[in-house]
Amino acid sequence: MMQKPLILVTNDDGITAPGIRALISVMKEIGDVIVVAPDSAQSGMGHAVTINNTLTLEKVMIDEGLEAEYACSGTPVDCVKIALGQILDRKPDLCVSGVNHGSNSSINVIYSGTMSAALEAGMSGIPAIGFSLLDFSWNADFEHIKPFIMKITREALNKGIPADVVFNVNFPRLSSDEIKGVKVCRQAKATWVETFDKRISPHGKEYYWLKGEFINQDKGEDTDEWALDNGYISLVPVHFDMTSHHSIKSINAWDL
Amino acid sequence: MMQKPLILVTNDDGITAPGIRALISVMKEIGDVIVVAPDSAQSGMGHAVTINNTLTLEKVMIDEGLEAEYACSGTPVDCVKIALGQILDRKPDLCVSGVNHGSNSSINVIYSGTMSAALEAGMSGIPAIGFSLLDFSWNADFEHIKPFIMKITREALNKGIPADVVFNVNFPRLSSDEIKGVKVCRQAKATWVETFDKRISPHGKEYYWLKGEFINQDKGEDTDEWALDNGYISLVPVHFDMTSHHSIKSINAWDL
Repeated sequence: MMQKPLILVTNDDGITAPGIRALISVMKEIGDVIVVAPDSAQSGMGHAVTINNTLTLEKVMIDEGLEAEYACSGTPVDCVKIALGQILDRKPDLCVSGVNHGSNSSINVIYSGTMSAALEAGMSGIPAIGFSLLDFSWNADFEHIKPFIMKITREALNKGIPADVVFNVNFPRLSSDEIKGVKVCRQAKATWVETFDKRISPHGKEYYWLKGEFINQDKGEDTDEWALDNGYISLVPVHFDMTSHHSIKSINAWDL
Repeated sequence: MMQKPLILVTNDDGITAPGIRALISVMKEIGDVIVVAPDSAQSGMGHAVTINNTLTLEKVMIDEGLEAEYACSGTPVDCVKIALGQILDRKPDLCVSGVNHGSNSSINVIYSGTMSAALEAGMSGIPAIGFSLLDFSWNADFEHIKPFIMKITREALNKGIPADVVFNVNFPRLSSDEIKGVKVCRQAKATWVETFDKRISPHGKEYYWLKGEFINQDKGEDTDEWALDNGYISLVPVHFDMTSHHSIKSINAWDL
């Protein structure tokens, strides 16, 4: 690619999060960067889109040397939609989302605003990658994963992400020396089992906090959970055809 | 099944929507019904889950002859989580979601609160079906589709929905006579192309409304869009493994 690629950067932790700042700093070395990210934390928003409310868009300047940065009042998916539908004159060559503060491995791909933004770009025909680090802390260290992000992104631009596929990349919470490399994986079969913390407000009204425990039922060694547990960066190629193709035949025999 | 099945009913249009009332009336003839649904409209919420805020739960009585009804302040996925984690003593035998006022065919499965609720139940090992009618109107007529809902639900309970599969059922906007039957389909490859309606508030601030145009790029006759366009009820078996399994091998050859 002779021309510098145009790269759209977004996330779900909000435009000021250290994770997106780290991602922007890598992307600035690769191409022309435009940032459209939520003006507040939007974790767990999944593929939510704002249809019963309005959106605002504010041009901000946080890092230097960028095409532009916009803070959007909506969800991560809204950010991608408004970038493509309102802000950009042409399709970006790549969309990257993250770096998320916390894991988006296995079933978390469905709850994740970070990955939903990447999927939304993928659905619009834009090569897209979501990056996440297994460290929820706001002060998480992203410095040592930058070379890995650089290499994965360059290879994705060189080789071309397959059509209708988006990459879900998760980094273990390990130092550079401890990281063994990248494993291409399938999504582990895991679930969240919820409990609720019931409390009483000062006004006597009951309310609940959602708490969850992550249960990995999958013993496979070809999964993202296995890779992360064993010192690898996991890369799951994700698609948005949710059809269970192999069940179609058996259900066709039903009396419906 | 000798014992009456326990059926959890939810939706995304809110607990008072005519669509969920129609669904409840059918389920009351099949089993013991418990309703946990959003206290307000939650369309387009996808798989969003409330982690940065609290949830409230109010016991309400709208229809007679039910085990219980609860209005929840959260998203459709929150409703399923709080039903399983807080309200119910045992796993329900079935979860049904809808009847949605409007289509959840093809790519809409990813944006849909109705289908995300059904998927959440499926992820917890509960057989689940989402029902949607291609009529956005609040006054949509659900009466004539009740026998179809009954038949599909009974057959699903009898035959057993395959593990890790959830049904996405969409009804065309046609009379009983015009409906040709049920087709088991794959999700059509379609996208929304967004435009934004930019306005100025009375206070001089710019804001946007999301508008979208649905583009079906898929000419296949085995898709849900084809079935609905040709007078059939579409049934797509949906799963939540989003791995693009067939791309793993080629990406393994990359230098990552």
